[in-house]
Amino acid sequence: MSELDAKVLSDMKQRVWQANLALAKAGLVVLTWGNASEINRELGLIVIKPSGVPYETMTADQMVVTDLAGNLLDQDSLRPSSDLPTHVYLYQHFTEVSGIVHTHSKYAVMWAQSGRNIPPYGTTHADTFYGPIPCTRQLTQSEVEAAYERDTGKVIVECFEKNALDPLAVPGVLTIGHGPFTWGATVSKAVENAVVLDEVAHMALFTELLNNDRPVLPSYMLDKHYFRKHGANAYYGQK
Amino acid sequence: MSELDAKVLSDMKQRVWQANLALAKAGLVVLTWGNASEINRELGLIVIKPSGVPYETMTADQMVVTDLAGNLLDQDSLRPSSDLPTHVYLYQHFTEVSGIVHTHSKYAVMWAQSGRNIPPYGTTHADTFYGPIPCTRQLTQSEVEAAYERDTGKVIVECFEKNALDPLAVPGVLTIGHGPFTWGATVSKAVENAVVLDEVAHMALFTELLNNDRPVLPSYMLDKHYFRKHGANAYYGQK
Amino acid sequence: MSELDAKVLSDMKQRVWQANLALAKAGLVVLTWGNASEINRELGLIVIKPSGVPYETMTADQMVVTDLAGNLLDQDSLRPSSDLPTHVYLYQHFTEVSGIVHTHSKYAVMWAQSGRNIPPYGTTHADTFYGPIPCTRQLTQSEVEAAYERDTGKVIVECFEKNALDPLAVPGVLTIGHGPFTWGATVSKAVENAVVLDEVAHMALFTELLNNDRPVLPSYMLDKHYFRKHGANAYYGQK
Amino acid sequence: MSELDAKVLSDMKQRVWQANLALAKAGLVVLTWGNASEINRELGLIVIKPSGVPYETMTADQMVVTDLAGNLLDQDSLRPSSDLPTHVYLYQHFTEVSGIVHTHSKYAVMWAQSGRNIPPYGTTHADTFYGPIPCTRQLTQSEVEAAYERDTGKVIVECFEKNALDPLAVPGVLTIGHGPFTWGATVSKAVENAVVLDEVAHMALFTELLNNDRPVLPSYMLDKHYFRKHGANAYYGQK
Repeated sequence: MSELDAKVLSDMKQRVWQANLALAKAGLVVLTWGNASEINRELGLIVIKPSGVPYETMTADQMVVTDLAGNLLDQDSLRPSSDLPTHVYLYQHFTEVSGIVHTHSKYAVMWAQSGRNIPPYGTTHADTFYGPIPCTRQLTQSEVEAAYERDTGKVIVECFEKNALDPLAVPGVLTIGHGPFTWGATVSKAVENAVVLDEVAHMALFTELLNNDRPVLPSYMLDKHYFRKHGANAYYGQK
Repeated sequence: MSELDAKVLSDMKQRVWQANLALAKAGLVVLTWGNASEINRELGLIVIKPSGVPYETMTADQMVVTDLAGNLLDQDSLRPSSDLPTHVYLYQHFTEVSGIVHTHSKYAVMWAQSGRNIPPYGTTHADTFYGPIPCTRQLTQSEVEAAYERDTGKVIVECFEKNALDPLAVPGVLTIGHGPFTWGATVSKAVENAVVLDEVAHMALFTELLNNDRPVLPSYMLDKHYFRKHGANAYYGQK
Repeated sequence: MSELDAKVLSDMKQRVWQANLALAKAGLVVLTWGNASEINRELGLIVIKPSGVPYETMTADQMVVTDLAGNLLDQDSLRPSSDLPTHVYLYQHFTEVSGIVHTHSKYAVMWAQSGRNIPPYGTTHADTFYGPIPCTRQLTQSEVEAAYERDTGKVIVECFEKNALDPLAVPGVLTIGHGPFTWGATVSKAVENAVVLDEVAHMALFTELLNNDRPVLPSYMLDKHYFRKHGANAYYGQK
Repeated sequence: MSELDAKVLSDMKQRVWQANLALAKAGLVVLTWGNASEINRELGLIVIKPSGVPYETMTADQMVVTDLAGNLLDQDSLRPSSDLPTHVYLYQHFTEVSGIVHTHSKYAVMWAQSGRNIPPYGTTHADTFYGPIPCTRQLTQSEVEAAYERDTGKVIVECFEKNALDPLAVPGVLTIGHGPFTWGATVSKAVENAVVLDEVAHMALFTELLNNDRPVLPSYMLDKHYFRKHGANAYYGQK
């Protein structure tokens, strides 16, 4: 590996490490229940959190490096997150995505356990997610027994294809009975989307308690808020 | 600008900056979802938070200065909060208001998303809000597409006029499907009212869960608590 | 005042000040919504928090001293908490009580706003409150207009007399539409009871959501847990 | 006691002390409502938290040492946690368990007060608890009056025997109207299981609010997640 590539890889490890710490700091992670990864398609590298390592002692050097198929590049490294095959599958099919996050953040998990999509009840939702946040179908017994983590990726991609969803316009999903995956053009954007998803899940939960008629945001409001922040005509934030 | 006016403006920037930090510290702001502003009608100045700048690195100097119509006074300044036109419209119509705050604080948003006014269930509410905290009507598609942020101000003012509400007696509102705006005679009072609104929204949410009959405070209790803290006969706090 | 009495008074101010800070630290107080007091019946003194003073800058010296009827002993002192007449009335009728706390802690307020007693659903409740935590009746308009704060004390005492409750066995109450008062043999015990009341209110709220049949603790369990901690046969804690 | 045994005991006290502090730090303990213990069957020792001692001032030296029947080994020690007889009974019957924790953590208590088992709604549950988390039957009046704490252990063991549950596969229980006990092969594992139980209780509470049909995890998913982390074929975490 060239000196330049080594520097790129070292920076990836730093970002992935910091993304994992940011998840914990945002209150989205209990114990070791979360992981973040980043891909560099040109160099053929994925960097992901090691499995089951406490956040307090985790270092950037411990981040695990694999090729684009998820094979370890250094046999002396720690074991990667057990969810690595899900990340790999998503990177293969969501080609504009460069960072992925998985957590068991509580409000998102409540929706995932209920098996329901999160409806777009407000602009906080629409600012980041252009439409409902979908919940996948249940994996079959043979899928679970044969290749559970890879097929978790498969049902996510299937869900997006069936519903003709753009992964960057709806940068997250609920896997039924399990929890959220979010992603983005960078790993820090994937972390931000994990924060938004849990907040939106919390707000939607009790919106329904207040109003059984469940008013969804009009589509022109969804458009307004989403495109105020995204695309060529966005005018939120600094240039 | 005279040396004296420059000092006044510098103090405004300090207060607006600190108001924004206070919102974050009170737990009302996730990511960059909030903004605070102050007006000085004599000098013809509005100071408001820049758009999408992280709270950790934000400085008082980055606060954006506009005239009373919302035009930038310094073309090199950062972009103002995208909600500036709402603030401008409110300052034009609520002439006793000198500070405005907008957040996506979660309990207030739940009520805004449910499309309901918050009923005055208790004295915590009555100490600050003299009656229900109203929720605006939905903006029409043409309002949203033509001048969304300005017309957000318009529906707020319309809501207060229709219901003959005094903006200082009911210093806050829910914009439907969106979230709360609060205000006050100073920007720090507007922040305080944002804190109260979210707390009252939380209390009201679960009051309803405990009691379907939803007992509202008797009007003489509303009077007692509101006027214990406001107006000529107030006796709460220090002289 | 003798040197000895001055020392006793100075210690009271310290304890009352620290009790108020403890309420804020326990998360029971938003803004300035809370107050604690202590009585010394021998010296004829009550010490109470000043009204509307921010917790961050409050000092022990600012605590306000009154006689047993609530009259200021030092005309230069700050104004006492506006709830002083409630404290005075309670001290006059609950003669074993030496410390009183009032807050707007959120879960207790939800029950107060719902107008309901908190049923003893579990041992956490029974360890401190020997039976339901009662909610007072609504004050009449003439009570509110004539002597609101004193008559808040009156309806509390009336509620305890009507239900033949021992104030030390049920060391707290909900004032309808308002919030909790708690008390104890010391002001720090009154603070502890405020913490317990809010925690028990939170637990009871969602116990009901989980089970509509609302199982109340059997009376022999209530006895066991209460008397494990209180009275001659208590065996919890150190000797 | 040999020098070596003294070192082993000193290490036990350190671990039990730290386990108690970890419970407080994780937000599972209000006031002094919690206790942790560890057993060393070879040396015939149990170490447990003293009763009612504040966490802020508690030291490792204050941990109380008993024999396997719960008799104090040092008559000058502090009083042990009043729940000691429950711990002793559980150690006698759950022979693979070496650490036990009891708390009044709020979400677990809500389920205990509702008298219901926590159904396995998701993988967060299945990762630690292989099936529903059971709720015990109510103790009878004579059990409560004769040997309350010991018989709390008795109904837990009875519940596990009746339902043919393996205490290490379901490392926790709800005692009806009271709260959770958790355990593990070490006291730090018992603490971790207390954290998981409260988190899972929180998630399950609002999963039911979102979906009345209450979808339970398919058994093949329960198997997958439990055995991904436990037993010979586990592949989560580091070797």
